[in-house]
Amino acid sequence: MHARVIQALQSIVGPQYVLTEPQDLVCYSFDATWHTGRPDVVVLPAETRQVQEIVRLAAAERIPVTPRGAGTGLAGGAVPVRGGILLSLTRMRRIVDIDTRNLLAVVEPGVVTAELQRQVAREGLFYPPDPASAKVSTIGGNIATGAGGPRCFKYGVTRDYVLGLEVVLASGEVLRTGGKTVKNVTGYDLTRLLVGSEGTLGVITGATLRLIPQPETQRTLLGVFPRLADASAAVGDIVAKGIVPTTLELVDQTALRVVEDYLQAGLPVEAEAVLIIEVDGFAEAVDRQARRVAELCEAHGASAVRVAADAAQAAELWQARRAINPSLTRIRPIKVGEDVTVPPGEIPAFIRRFQYLRERYRDLPMVVYGHAGDGNLHPNVVMDPRRPEERARVEAWLADLARVALDLGGTLTGEHGIGLLKAPFLEWEVGPVGMEVMRAVKRALDPLNILNPGKMALDGPQATEAAPAAEPGPAPTGGGTRG
Amino acid sequence: MHARVIQALQSIVGPQYVLTEPQDLVCYSFDATWHTGRPDVVVLPAETRQVQEIVRLAAAERIPVTPRGAGTGLAGGAVPVRGGILLSLTRMRRIVDIDTRNLLAVVEPGVVTAELQRQVAREGLFYPPDPASAKVSTIGGNIATGAGGPRCFKYGVTRDYVLGLEVVLASGEVLRTGGKTVKNVTGYDLTRLLVGSEGTLGVITGATLRLIPQPETQRTLLGVFPRLADASAAVGDIVAKGIVPTTLELVDQTALRVVEDYLQAGLPVEAEAVLIIEVDGFAEAVDRQARRVAELCEAHGASAVRVAADAAQAAELWQARRAINPSLTRIRPIKVGEDVTVPPGEIPAFIRRFQYLRERYRDLPMVVYGHAGDGNLHPNVVMDPRRPEERARVEAWLADLARVALDLGGTLTGEHGIGLLKAPFLEWEVGPVGMEVMRAVKRALDPLNILNPGKMALDGPQATEAAPAAEPGPAPTGGGTRG
Repeated sequence: MHARVIQALQSIVGPQYVLTEPQDLVCYSFDATWHTGRPDVVVLPAETRQVQEIVRLAAAERIPVTPRGAGTGLAGGAVPVRGGILLSLTRMRRIVDIDTRNLLAVVEPGVVTAELQRQVAREGLFYPPDPASAKVSTIGGNIATGAGGPRCFKYGVTRDYVLGLEVVLASGEVLRTGGKTVKNVTGYDLTRLLVGSEGTLGVITGATLRLIPQPETQRTLLGVFPRLADASAAVGDIVAKGIVPTTLELVDQTALRVVEDYLQAGLPVEAEAVLIIEVDGFAEAVDRQARRVAELCEAHGASAVRVAADAAQAAELWQARRAINPSLTRIRPIKVGEDVTVPPGEIPAFIRRFQYLRERYRDLPMVVYGHAGDGNLHPNVVMDPRRPEERARVEAWLADLARVALDLGGTLTGEHGIGLLKAPFLEWEVGPVGMEVMRAVKRALDPLNILNPGKMALDGPQATEAAPAAEPGPAPTGGGTRG
Repeated sequence: MHARVIQALQSIVGPQYVLTEPQDLVCYSFDATWHTGRPDVVVLPAETRQVQEIVRLAAAERIPVTPRGAGTGLAGGAVPVRGGILLSLTRMRRIVDIDTRNLLAVVEPGVVTAELQRQVAREGLFYPPDPASAKVSTIGGNIATGAGGPRCFKYGVTRDYVLGLEVVLASGEVLRTGGKTVKNVTGYDLTRLLVGSEGTLGVITGATLRLIPQPETQRTLLGVFPRLADASAAVGDIVAKGIVPTTLELVDQTALRVVEDYLQAGLPVEAEAVLIIEVDGFAEAVDRQARRVAELCEAHGASAVRVAADAAQAAELWQARRAINPSLTRIRPIKVGEDVTVPPGEIPAFIRRFQYLRERYRDLPMVVYGHAGDGNLHPNVVMDPRRPEERARVEAWLADLARVALDLGGTLTGEHGIGLLKAPFLEWEVGPVGMEVMRAVKRALDPLNILNPGKMALDGPQATEAAPAAEPGPAPTGGGTRG
């Protein structure tokens, strides 16, 4: 990148917020997938005006701009695969307002999700979306990917909590969408067009989020199922009976065993699956819901149903679920977290096909767990990206899993996004007309293709990436013209 | 319109479904506003393939196509202001599937909202959006406008229940968006870009709708408030206390009096306002919620709180609210139903400003009622569109109301849409950048501007309309090239 551009960036944000040292560039060259792409420069703006100037400069110089939150993404969305400017929004982390009268919060994009949840809880309010990375991930990243989480079964996903956005467009102009009301049909719903657009249509610099009253109480249950098929049947029956738990999580035996190896906590590893179910709401109703859930689990062959008496016991019941990720990464360095989603009634069929894939890819350590209630399971494999043959196997597995989900009337991604990981399969789901419309929208808003190019298959075949390397390698070559 | 085009349309849908007689054209030249625009031809397709052929023909001939459901719109969205083809979707009215396992329905656009609600209720399921016109309006129209209703306070609006769409694009191609899962972040959220786009981006030919379990029970309360300010304070307090009623409806004294003149039902016309509040859910929780609501009403100066003992009594409490529309249209022929929306905490301020406008426009019979809980009130005036000076007064009132809502951090429209009625004010809310982005999206998807041209200020200044006339007048001249 030309020194003139670096100097211009330094004059916008201050020299200490423009990073060009190789060790810095490497730190911003990946997310939680195996995908990598080294930026030419990392820029950390402090305010919207600076983002505007950076984007204007990038447009003038035809330099790719990849926005990034905490880099916890599971689809490669924030990997700067065409080099250029990596725009880290983590310095913009003010909670501007928590408005208890109107049940909303106004935040900057770099606010950490769990921090927002803590702050609003002090006011008796609740921001439900709870991606696994909530302690680290940012609201901006959550919005850009359309993040989910266990509680979304009852409370809906990130898009349901975004009332309005402030976005810097590819032109450098600021677009303000939506507002402060839940009911709003003024013009096109640009707010939701931007939610989940992975930084390809604009850089999110602010958000107005809907909050809801905190539920009065909650109850956590654990159902132990000797047979996985019974657990998935119980899920279907709970949903069909009209019970709407806060969470309806499944953990299969392979995941239980991986966790037990790690924790030695006396988990029921002889069971093919456990369900972790939480109900919340008014105290009286919660008791009855918990009883009905327990009865349904037993009716479907649960060998034991434990009900937590207090928060400490509830945390114990959640232990197995929470320890899956750290346990898995002990086996091999990279965990590939899938999030294909099927209609909830197809969970038993999905589980059957997953078992078949488990046989077919016996060389890949594989577990399944996740949000069974809304059909959003997480089949996971662990792999070593330094072994190309292993990567090829994982890519074949991803493709098979995509086919299974689509075949069952499901979708490629429930909460992680398309990014790089699922770009090769996107057209299978949305079809050529869907691709055409998405590309038309992209061209309309970003005619120079400077915003996060190379993602979602928007500009045709995926860019060649640098091979994953333990050592920092050369920057990938791509479509962006550099100064 | 050229006879060749009429013949081509006849060969697509059959001669009996192509209407060209003046009396037919007049029937399709208006909605529930004063706006009118006479189509050159009315076409009633029976299936998606026919819609495709009609749109392809229209594109080839550069003829405007205005999609229409039941014509109950309150913003002029379905008025064919540029003439051309009026595309009535009412023959496409099949409920294709009610899927109780996956809690969803697949429908054609012409399905009447209340009919869908009846059919899913038989399966113990619930489709919450309840626009006032639900007995007549169609799902397609509800989606195109982003319709709301009283229950949306608790359950969310139409956009929250659309999982997927089938849409015929301006190119004649069929786009399928979304799918059968609540969690779905595959590509851009084209589903929600289309919800509320008022037929300007595509013709909705099918929808997959999310259903939820029917609430177990409900309770209806009526609070009588000697002072309007107290009623609005009670609303704010109920919301702030974390109670989420199903509906939180306000009816002011002027509306009560208009209804009482009509019904002679012994309504509390001495009160400045009543609140009609419904809570639903599990039986035990509903009782406690109802008690808390009653206490809060009393604490805020309600002179009486009635609780319905059964469905018949509940219907009685709703009587005043339900009779407002028929009562109003007895006074003057056209009711202008406003739906500006403010953040819920601003309801008291909005009421104060509304009272000021009532003074300022003393010549216009004016009432206020509506969905106080989500800040979506309906100030209404009645008028005679044959009197141009009255129409000018109403237009000035609409502009003042728009300014009040925006000034309080609100929005132009909570559930009716922009259409023609609010197009002059759209830029006040979304700004020049918002207009520019909307127009770019429109051009990207409909470069020939054949889909519902003249709406939402998308193609610049509004088209000249034919003056409202008691007798069928000449077709309006507009931007469309006719054969």
